[in-house]
Amino acid sequence: MSTTTELTPNGVDVAQLVQTVEAISADPSLAAFRFRARNTWLGGARSRTAIQGFWGAGAEDTSRSEPFLLEGDEPPVLLGDNHAPNAVEIVLHALASCLAVGLAYNAAARGIELRALEIDVEGELDLHGFLGLADDVRPGYSGVQVTCRVDGDAPDDQIAELCDHVERTSPVLDILRHPVAVTLVRD
Amino acid sequence: MSTTTELTPNGVDVAQLVQTVEAISADPSLAAFRFRARNTWLGGARSRTAIQGFWGAGAEDTSRSEPFLLEGDEPPVLLGDNHAPNAVEIVLHALASCLAVGLAYNAAARGIELRALEIDVEGELDLHGFLGLADDVRPGYSGVQVTCRVDGDAPDDQIAELCDHVERTSPVLDILRHPVAVTLVRD
Repeated sequence: MSTTTELTPNGVDVAQLVQTVEAISADPSLAAFRFRARNTWLGGARSRTAIQGFWGAGAEDTSRSEPFLLEGDEPPVLLGDNHAPNAVEIVLHALASCLAVGLAYNAAARGIELRALEIDVEGELDLHGFLGLADDVRPGYSGVQVTCRVDGDAPDDQIAELCDHVERTSPVLDILRHPVAVTLVRD
Repeated sequence: MSTTTELTPNGVDVAQLVQTVEAISADPSLAAFRFRARNTWLGGARSRTAIQGFWGAGAEDTSRSEPFLLEGDEPPVLLGDNHAPNAVEIVLHALASCLAVGLAYNAAARGIELRALEIDVEGELDLHGFLGLADDVRPGYSGVQVTCRVDGDAPDDQIAELCDHVERTSPVLDILRHPVAVTLVRD
């Protein structure tokens, strides 16, 4: 008989995951998502982003009764007040949390129970770019290193295959590794 | 006579900004920064990232006595529990907060007082990539649109030049628009 653990390995509802895949296979338009954020500047380096609704699975999502409010700031050495991490640190958080979701979901789909998962991310950045001091120095990360510690109930080759799959399908990893067309307009 | 407002337009300490630029011009190695994050999986789609120290300006930064703790999760339609925004929404937050800092700092350097600044960001994503349902669909954003409302004490052409400069020098915009080399290892 199935146990609760088997139905939701890693806390993931595999039945819902299968239903989602089947629904998108039947109607590919359900896979179209559109995420949104609104940022308000608070003075200095500090700003606050509100994130609530999005379009996805063929409808406007209404599951969040309140917006998530996230802040950005800079440390004093970068002229801020340390109210929050800075924007490039937030990118590292986005990447790590994306990999965590991908590992948990795809492990569940493979029947692999994860005992623990820890992801370290580091990125190097040369401030010449942001400060406009050198045209040949990019403003963003010159490189990012990710170290994953995956403790799962599966042989090493299955863990390796899981990691390879997540590396191919992680949205934020793809956003970092490959160009995204970004348009900016002033309103 | 200078007023406090003139010394810190937009809440930005311009004297410190000038000092930073001069220090890096004198010793380019001070521009090398290395940011870090550690993510711990909490079950399901939920994880928590700790961000505290970093290397920069020739030293390990010790200005933060406690780590920032940021969470990631998914909404129910993506099998999560809505404890936090998801990873690709966090990318939008990173982009918007980066542009806000860039606009505030560079406006201050130009002597432009900002009255208000609001930035909307939207991104489209096709779930076929993340779910591994189509090899020809990228997992990440197919496109991102940014709308900036900049209310500043300057003629429109100066605001336009400010925005163009920030578009060229924003670290997170660069990270999205151009490939970043990301290495993944298992430990």
